[in-house]
Amino acid sequence: MAAQRRIDLVLDSVRRLLRIGATANLLNLLQKQHPADLAQVLGELADRDRQATFSLLADRNGRLAMETVSELGPESGAALLATKSAEEIARLAQEIPSDDAAALIDHLPEELSAAVLELMRPKQSGEVENLLEYDEQTAGRIMNPHVFALDEDLTVGEAITELQTNRDVEMVFYLYVVDERRHLVGVTSLRRLLLVSPETPLKRIMTTDLISARVDMDQEEVARQVASYNLLAIPVVDEENKLVGVITVDDVIDVIKEEATEDIYRLAGVAGDERAFTPAGESIRKRLPWLGVNLATAFLAASVVALFEGTIERITALAVFMPIVAGMGGNAATQTLTVIVRGIALGELTWSNSRKTLVKEAAVGVSNGVVLGLVAAAVAWSTRGSPVLGLILCAAMIINMFVAATAGTLVPLGLRAANVDPALASSVFITTLTDVFGFFSFLGLATLFMRYLAPGG
Amino acid sequence: MAAQRRIDLVLDSVRRLLRIGATANLLNLLQKQHPADLAQVLGELADRDRQATFSLLADRNGRLAMETVSELGPESGAALLATKSAEEIARLAQEIPSDDAAALIDHLPEELSAAVLELMRPKQSGEVENLLEYDEQTAGRIMNPHVFALDEDLTVGEAITELQTNRDVEMVFYLYVVDERRHLVGVTSLRRLLLVSPETPLKRIMTTDLISARVDMDQEEVARQVASYNLLAIPVVDEENKLVGVITVDDVIDVIKEEATEDIYRLAGVAGDERAFTPAGESIRKRLPWLGVNLATAFLAASVVALFEGTIERITALAVFMPIVAGMGGNAATQTLTVIVRGIALGELTWSNSRKTLVKEAAVGVSNGVVLGLVAAAVAWSTRGSPVLGLILCAAMIINMFVAATAGTLVPLGLRAANVDPALASSVFITTLTDVFGFFSFLGLATLFMRYLAPGG
Repeated sequence: MAAQRRIDLVLDSVRRLLRIGATANLLNLLQKQHPADLAQVLGELADRDRQATFSLLADRNGRLAMETVSELGPESGAALLATKSAEEIARLAQEIPSDDAAALIDHLPEELSAAVLELMRPKQSGEVENLLEYDEQTAGRIMNPHVFALDEDLTVGEAITELQTNRDVEMVFYLYVVDERRHLVGVTSLRRLLLVSPETPLKRIMTTDLISARVDMDQEEVARQVASYNLLAIPVVDEENKLVGVITVDDVIDVIKEEATEDIYRLAGVAGDERAFTPAGESIRKRLPWLGVNLATAFLAASVVALFEGTIERITALAVFMPIVAGMGGNAATQTLTVIVRGIALGELTWSNSRKTLVKEAAVGVSNGVVLGLVAAAVAWSTRGSPVLGLILCAAMIINMFVAATAGTLVPLGLRAANVDPALASSVFITTLTDVFGFFSFLGLATLFMRYLAPGG
Repeated sequence: MAAQRRIDLVLDSVRRLLRIGATANLLNLLQKQHPADLAQVLGELADRDRQATFSLLADRNGRLAMETVSELGPESGAALLATKSAEEIARLAQEIPSDDAAALIDHLPEELSAAVLELMRPKQSGEVENLLEYDEQTAGRIMNPHVFALDEDLTVGEAITELQTNRDVEMVFYLYVVDERRHLVGVTSLRRLLLVSPETPLKRIMTTDLISARVDMDQEEVARQVASYNLLAIPVVDEENKLVGVITVDDVIDVIKEEATEDIYRLAGVAGDERAFTPAGESIRKRLPWLGVNLATAFLAASVVALFEGTIERITALAVFMPIVAGMGGNAATQTLTVIVRGIALGELTWSNSRKTLVKEAAVGVSNGVVLGLVAAAVAWSTRGSPVLGLILCAAMIINMFVAATAGTLVPLGLRAANVDPALASSVFITTLTDVFGFFSFLGLATLFMRYLAPGG
C-alpha cells in the first residue's frame, strides 16, 4: 500500500513535469527512483508520455534507462526499446549485463535485432549471440555469463586479494572454485574465507559437493533446485562441467512467477505470453484457437442433447434442468483439476503416489454429488411437482460428479506421464466430458423413465 | 528429471531397507540426503513407512528430522509431528530456528501445541510465542528473529572481528547496522568491509537509504518488495524502527508460491490451504460451500430457461443449441478474467490504467464472437436447414461474448477497488452472468422471431 502510494505520487509529478516541460526537474526526480519503481511508473503512463520519459532517461542516464526497461519485462521492454534507432539501442544495450540485453534483443522485431547486434561492440554482441543460441527457457538462456571464479590453487589470502582487485564483480555470496581448465570443482563463501588464516589453501575449505545446473536444463527445473535447496545462486556448467555462468535467485523468482502465470493461463486457455496490455489483434489471434476447440466440443455436447430431442419435446422441463447437471459437473471437475495440476506443478503429486488421491477425489465427488443432488432434487420436486424428475436429477448429478472427479484426476496425471503439460489440455477435455456425461446421464435416465415423467405418459 | 530419478532411487532403497529392517543402513542413507529431498521421499512413502522413517531420524538426528519436516510444509509437517508425544516434539522443535518451529507448532492441534510450548526451554518457547502473536501472513509471523546486527560506532576492523567471533550467524550477505537502542540505521556488506581499510568507521561505508518491512506488513507485500528490488533479504522493524528480525529470499519464494497457489485456487473455487493430500472429509467440507453457491446460480440460470419453456416446447432445437451460447460465453469470460486477475496480482493493472484494457477486451470479445458466431451459424443452418436459427445463434453469441469480456474486466477491477480479492468472487459472478445472458439472449431472440422459426409458425 505504502509503496503504491509513493509510486502514485511520483507518477503525478512526472505527468506534471512533462506537461510544463521541466526537463531538468524531471530528470532529477527520475534519477532518485529505483528501476523497479520507474518501470511501474512507465507502465502507467500514456504511450506518448512513456516514450518521452524513456527518451529523456536514455539520453542522460543510459544505464538507469536500460535497467528500467529490463524491469518492464522482455515484451513491454522490447516494445519501448523498438521506438529507438538501431544505433541508439546498440549503445544502450551495452549498459546492462548481457543476459538482460539478450532477453530484450530477442524480443525486438527480427530485422532490428540483427541490426543492433551488428552495431554492438564485438565482445558484447558475441556474448549476447552466445546466450541466444541456447534454447528458450533453459539455464543457458537466462544465466549471467559473467561469473567470478577462484583458482583452486590459491590460498585464502590470495583469494581475498583477488576479490579486492575485481571491484566490479557483483555476486559474491558464493565463491566458485575452478581448476586450471575452468572445470567447476568447489564452492566456498566470503564468510568462510574470513574464519581461517590467510595461508590456508582454498582447496581445504571449499565444499566439493555442490549443486549446479547444466546449460540445457529447463528453467523450471533450475527454479525448483534453487527453491528446494534454498540457494541464493546456482552455477551453470557446460557438458564438460566447465563453469560458464551463474543464475541468481532474483532471476529464479522471475521464472517462478512466469511459470505460475503460465499454469494459471493454461487452465483457462490463454497463451502464456499474453498480458493485460497485449494489443487486441494479438489477443484475438491467441485466444481464437482455444475458443474454436471449445466450440467444436460444445457441438459435440449439443449432439448428445440432439439425441434426446424426442424426449425434450415431450417434457420441456428437462431443458430447464439439464444445464444444472452439466454445469455442476464442470465446477466440480475444475476444483479437482486445479488441485491435481497444482500438486503436479509443485512436485507433490507423482504417478506413483496418485492412487490414494484418485480414491479420495472419487469419494469427494460422490459425497458432494449426493448432498447437492438431494438439494437440487428437492427444488425440482417442489417447483415441478414431480418426485421422479427430482430423483433423476439427483442420480444424474451424482454420476456426473463422479465422472468429474475421476477424470479431473486421471487426465492431468495421464498427460503428465505422456510428457504433455497437464495444465495445457486438461480443462477442455474435462469440461467436454462433464457436459457430454451430464447431458447423457440426465436425458438418458429421463428417456428410460419417461412413463413416470410424461404428463400423458 | 535427473533429480526425480535420484529421489526415486532413494525411495526404492528406503522401502527395501525398511522391509528388511536394516536400520543402520537406512539411517546412513537418510543422513546423506538433503532435507528437501528427504521431504519428497517422505511424501511418497505410505503412512506407516513415513512414520517409521521419521521416528528413526527423530531419534538419531533430530536436526535433520526437523529440517525435513519443515520442508514438508506446515500442514503435512505438523501432521507428521503430531504422531509424537509433546515431550518429543518440544525437544525436536529446539533443533530448528524459531520461525520454522513457530510455523509447525501453529499447525498442531491446539492442546498439543500448548503442551509443547509449556515443555520447551523458556527462551525458545518465548520466541515462538512472540512470533505467533503476529497476525498470520504478516512479516512478523514469517521473520527469523535471530538477526545479526553491527553497532554503528564500530570500525570496519572491529566489525570483521565481531563476524569472526559470532560463528553461528547464518545470514551475512547483508550486514545491518543499528544504533545503541537497536534502531535500524543502515546496511553494508561483507564485501564492502573488505574493500576499505580496517580503521574506517562503519558509518562512513554504510548505506542509510535501505528498504525494510514493518512487522505488520502483509507477506505478499514483503514478497513484492524483495522481488522488485532484487533483494536477498529484508530487515523487519517494529513500529519504532527497531530491528526485530529478517526475512530471507528463500522464505519469500515460499510466499510467492503460496500466493500463486491461492490465486489459481480461488479462480477455481478451491480453498487456499487445500492440497492433493488433504483428507477427503476436509476436502468435501472445503469445496461444498463453493459448489452450493454454484448450484444456486445454476438454478438462477435455469429459471431464465424456464421463462422460455413455451418457446422450447415449439422448437426443441433451441434446447440443443442454447448450451453452446452459454458455454462459449463462459469460456471467453474465463480467458478475460484470468488475464485481468493475473495482471492485478502482478501489479501491472490498476484502476487508473484499466480503461484501455476494457476497450481492448470488449473489442476482442466482439471480434471472437463474430468469427465463432458465424461458424456456429453455418453449422446450425446446415444441420437444421434454418438460416434464421443460425442468425439468432450468431447474434446471441456476439452479445454474450461482449458481456463476457466487459464483465470479465469490470468485475475483478471493481472487487479490487472495493478491497476484495478479485480472484475470490470473480468466477462465480462471471459464469452466472454468461449463463443468464446466454440463455436470455438466445431464447429471447428466438421468441421474438418465432414466426420465422416455428415449423407451423
